[in-house]
Amino acid sequence: MLTDNELELLTEDECRALLARAKVGRVAITMGALPAVYPVNHQVIDGDILFLTGEGSKLRAALAGSVVAFQADEFDLEGRSGWSVLAVGVAEEVCHDVPAGTAGVVPLARGERDHLVRIRPEILTGRRINPADAA
Amino acid sequence: MLTDNELELLTEDECRALLARAKVGRVAITMGALPAVYPVNHQVIDGDILFLTGEGSKLRAALAGSVVAFQADEFDLEGRSGWSVLAVGVAEEVCHDVPAGTAGVVPLARGERDHLVRIRPEILTGRRINPADAA
Repeated sequence: MLTDNELELLTEDECRALLARAKVGRVAITMGALPAVYPVNHQVIDGDILFLTGEGSKLRAALAGSVVAFQADEFDLEGRSGWSVLAVGVAEEVCHDVPAGTAGVVPLARGERDHLVRIRPEILTGRRINPADAA
Repeated sequence: MLTDNELELLTEDECRALLARAKVGRVAITMGALPAVYPVNHQVIDGDILFLTGEGSKLRAALAGSVVAFQADEFDLEGRSGWSVLAVGVAEEVCHDVPAGTAGVVPLARGERDHLVRIRPEILTGRRINPADAA
């Protein structure tokens, strides 16, 4: 088992499976030269990360074909275990004016979110804390 | 109540209170020109975000005095509610070679994490989904 400072390093297959299981992830983008992170409801289809968004910074990043990060995690603080997966890739708008539910993505919030954005991970890394490795 | 695409905009005081209550947050940095997001256990003291880290990209960002983003959130998918707070500020190493528990921060993972890093938020924004606003 590969480790990084006592954290188990996950394989790409494990990362893909965990991302697909997570219901909420976070998109990290650059906005006016400053970093920003926003949560989204997402779906993973054929390894691509898909989410719906409205007008705003996430859509602008997609329209600009920016490299963005997508992160998901899950922690059990009492059980002292958890994982975190980071995907990095270009964000692209797949299509717009789509209904909620497209590609299985239903945004949690109401409001107009009808642009379907795809991130195709080019770098996929993850780490896991096992209870035995917790401090 | 101010809103952004049907999400309630939080005040800075609300953002500070939520960040302080969260046990885990995420640091977004740039690593070799690529964005990256890593979870940390943090504490908020006098509005500053503090966490312990080992050698690595989070420490390098701190040593370089980089502008980083810190994000925390909490969602109740069944209750269709939740919040997300984003803090942006310069990361700085406060001191190193400190024991776990310094400033109340205990990393979840074992391994050497003895550099205390501080982010002093210069921009603090947050959004909340109330069940009534959910899709």
